[in-house]
Amino acid sequence: MTSPAPALRVLRLGFDVGGSKIDAVAATDTGEIVRRVRRSTGWGADAVVGAVAETAVAMADDLGVPTSAFASVGVGIPGQADADQRTISHAVNLGIERLDLAAALEPVLGTRVRTENDVKAAALGAAKLHGRPGTTAYLNIGTGIAAGFVTDGVLWRGARGTSGEVGHIVADPNGPLCRCGQRGCIEMYAGGGAIARRWGKDVAFPVVDVFDAADAGDPEAVVLRDGIAFGVASALRLIALSIDPDFMVLGGGVTALGDRMLTRVMAELERAAEASPFLASLDLSSRVSVLPARSPVAALGAALIAVHPHEQEAHAHG
Amino acid sequence: MTSPAPALRVLRLGFDVGGSKIDAVAATDTGEIVRRVRRSTGWGADAVVGAVAETAVAMADDLGVPTSAFASVGVGIPGQADADQRTISHAVNLGIERLDLAAALEPVLGTRVRTENDVKAAALGAAKLHGRPGTTAYLNIGTGIAAGFVTDGVLWRGARGTSGEVGHIVADPNGPLCRCGQRGCIEMYAGGGAIARRWGKDVAFPVVDVFDAADAGDPEAVVLRDGIAFGVASALRLIALSIDPDFMVLGGGVTALGDRMLTRVMAELERAAEASPFLASLDLSSRVSVLPARSPVAALGAALIAVHPHEQEAHAHG
Repeated sequence: MTSPAPALRVLRLGFDVGGSKIDAVAATDTGEIVRRVRRSTGWGADAVVGAVAETAVAMADDLGVPTSAFASVGVGIPGQADADQRTISHAVNLGIERLDLAAALEPVLGTRVRTENDVKAAALGAAKLHGRPGTTAYLNIGTGIAAGFVTDGVLWRGARGTSGEVGHIVADPNGPLCRCGQRGCIEMYAGGGAIARRWGKDVAFPVVDVFDAADAGDPEAVVLRDGIAFGVASALRLIALSIDPDFMVLGGGVTALGDRMLTRVMAELERAAEASPFLASLDLSSRVSVLPARSPVAALGAALIAVHPHEQEAHAHG
Repeated sequence: MTSPAPALRVLRLGFDVGGSKIDAVAATDTGEIVRRVRRSTGWGADAVVGAVAETAVAMADDLGVPTSAFASVGVGIPGQADADQRTISHAVNLGIERLDLAAALEPVLGTRVRTENDVKAAALGAAKLHGRPGTTAYLNIGTGIAAGFVTDGVLWRGARGTSGEVGHIVADPNGPLCRCGQRGCIEMYAGGGAIARRWGKDVAFPVVDVFDAADAGDPEAVVLRDGIAFGVASALRLIALSIDPDFMVLGGGVTALGDRMLTRVMAELERAAEASPFLASLDLSSRVSVLPARSPVAALGAALIAVHPHEQEAHAHG
């Protein structure tokens, strides 16, 4: 009994396109990753389209098939996807104001291409890795903070592209001024970009530096480190009191801190629960987990976004 | 061309059971209300079961049918419904810790009985009245604050019974102490119960009194009135940045204030949007509406909760 060769199975390609690199996987519908490639990419629409197309061709060559043999290609991008998941807008960090990725890539690759916001794609991937039925809330703690919600394999997309934008929910109206114009956004406490600006030191990993300095007793670092726990805990509490998911999964660049961050978040959740039997009854800590660092959830989720809606429904209910 | 007599159509009964009165409707699956009755009720499980049963019998007599002719009976209760929607728990204001309403009523009424949290039931009713496809968020501003979310006729129930409990999301961690143990919960600003406690005057309608006193220049009342707008606007913003619904409908006792409240909420949304292009882009004001005072949304929604899941899915997709 041998499994069929990968080329004979239904395989999908998924891309997580960031500001400087692409993470690509070839995966089965059950979430098994048969190839993973990471490459650098450039800035602007042409560079992104070119890098995705070249990587797709390289992965197809590697598997000994044409790109049209892939059942679909999905591309996660830090921007806002249209409802038809063909066009991405406002991908500021990639220098893309608006791009019909499906139109650009489908003729080249000969298969169905869809795109999605990278955090929403990662939510699909995290739910697939998690594998349990019900609703998974994925909280991405990277340069910014955002969430995605997946119920039985189906992504919640919202009406106007702002579902899961919890990073710009205000945690403290007297907090630091956010670039969005509000004060005390969750992102100002727990987003890597805001931490780097507030810490103000020219280091490679500002959040790690903050944790190291806080461990060494630096009072400014302690404030920032406690703020990270406050911001993440605020996001988890508001997700529990609005969406009420079965599971909450933390991911994103800050997960490189691993238990150092989770321990602080859990302590903040417990501190708040001690003051509030109501919060204690939410049992948040038992619902929270952290992805392993460098987990390919966004690329895996991207591979799943181009599953046809009818297939997706069959997956969800089947 | 005459419509068939009500008794020949599929009719469902819906009950909104409050601390002192019951609102009951007989409605069609399209949301047409053919009878509405309001009655006083008592405290405790026996009084609630008795009042629902008597009202159902009276409405059946009035329509010239047995109660078994109703396709279903739904009961909205200020408590937490089990996943099977047969049992309600923690209905503190009714003196009910736990009650299997379906078991108590089905043998008496001879038809399917289901129960649901009253705000979730009202969300179903508000979405039905609204009538447009997509996601409706219903924000109930009564003694407490809570929300319900309905997508294409299907209620979002959450994993642990705390979906939509936005009243206990913190709007200001330095705000007034809430009974739940947290500080600055949205409910502390905009909930009728908290307003009454904070205003501290023995009047019939504390929130109206606060608005009247604020209009007359009372500085303490101005703080409370502005707080109501802050609390409601905070809830609307966080719903837009988590769920991202198509529509947001305000309901509950505070809607008795009508435009007096809505004007303040809109002004607060606009004030915040002026400082934040991001908030302005959410276009919240165009998504918000207020139910007419004494709108029977909870009873209407309760009538719809006992629609069999398969019928519900047919409704949603059909």
